[in-house]
Amino acid sequence: MAYPPPAGPPMGVDPLWGFFSAVAGADGQIDAEELQRCLTSSGFSGSYQPFSKETCRVMIAMLDRDYSGKMGFNEFKELWGALNQWRDTFYRFDSDRSGNIDARELQQTLTAFGYNLSPQAIGAIVRHFATDGKIVFDSFVACCVRLRVLTTSFQQRDTMRNGSATFRYDDFIQVVMGI
Amino acid sequence: MAYPPPAGPPMGVDPLWGFFSAVAGADGQIDAEELQRCLTSSGFSGSYQPFSKETCRVMIAMLDRDYSGKMGFNEFKELWGALNQWRDTFYRFDSDRSGNIDARELQQTLTAFGYNLSPQAIGAIVRHFATDGKIVFDSFVACCVRLRVLTTSFQQRDTMRNGSATFRYDDFIQVVMGI
Repeated sequence: MAYPPPAGPPMGVDPLWGFFSAVAGADGQIDAEELQRCLTSSGFSGSYQPFSKETCRVMIAMLDRDYSGKMGFNEFKELWGALNQWRDTFYRFDSDRSGNIDARELQQTLTAFGYNLSPQAIGAIVRHFATDGKIVFDSFVACCVRLRVLTTSFQQRDTMRNGSATFRYDDFIQVVMGI
Repeated sequence: MAYPPPAGPPMGVDPLWGFFSAVAGADGQIDAEELQRCLTSSGFSGSYQPFSKETCRVMIAMLDRDYSGKMGFNEFKELWGALNQWRDTFYRFDSDRSGNIDARELQQTLTAFGYNLSPQAIGAIVRHFATDGKIVFDSFVACCVRLRVLTTSFQQRDTMRNGSATFRYDDFIQVVMGI
């Protein structure tokens, strides 16, 4: 047959494919703005606000291995899995569905995810992501993404596995500005 | 006399005091939202857009030594000096007053400021702060603030002054999430 193979799963096979393909261009990739539309149309954010452009940017940066600023369908599915885990945890602590959690609840969620952080580190995170002491779901996702990427980058340089890592200055800037 | 000393310079002494005191509350401090109003009313951003709330947050974080999320008049004056330097440099490269610079011009400005960064590090910065390959003044300021704070934090840990620094994991998260 002269037809080229499809750029992803055929319609109907994977329910996510419909949302993805509706916004992906001919290259089968989505950028931050398209991801925002895609997650909104999929109803992902539920009772919460649509994701901000900045949070969509860090979600793409987390999985953007070729630095294209875009993600394909496989990365989108990987993101979908992580988002579901983050949302379930956020829901558990946002028991009144106010759409936000406080500093103490953030510490509990991060502990549940296996992070072992001092009150000083939690304080830095809260000052970064909270508004009037409250963290909305959008900021929580941005926080989880950054923490995951930074922790992975740190672990890759912690060659002795003793919680200590040495960086060259240029590498440090690449890691930190990369997310 | 029974009068308490004034919370800052008396009116008329420092032209910046008028802008600052008009938005500072009784505590003589301004938060990110007040800084946004203060810089807009002072006409600082010139022909550019007012600063975003996020850029105002990182400007305060840069000088927020007591983690209050606010800055006093002395910190505001320090910020004002840095902003003037950044604006003058940005203007120099934004010769057509389009309100943005490209990746090559960003590299030139950072080199002019004394940063010695690889193309890979510049690439990470551009992906972080650019939209469609262009960096607007607001993002440029956020970039300068982050780079300055991260570089200072790195230098404090580069005890041998050889461009290499060792971090404990918790300290790394505090430094990186702190800005």
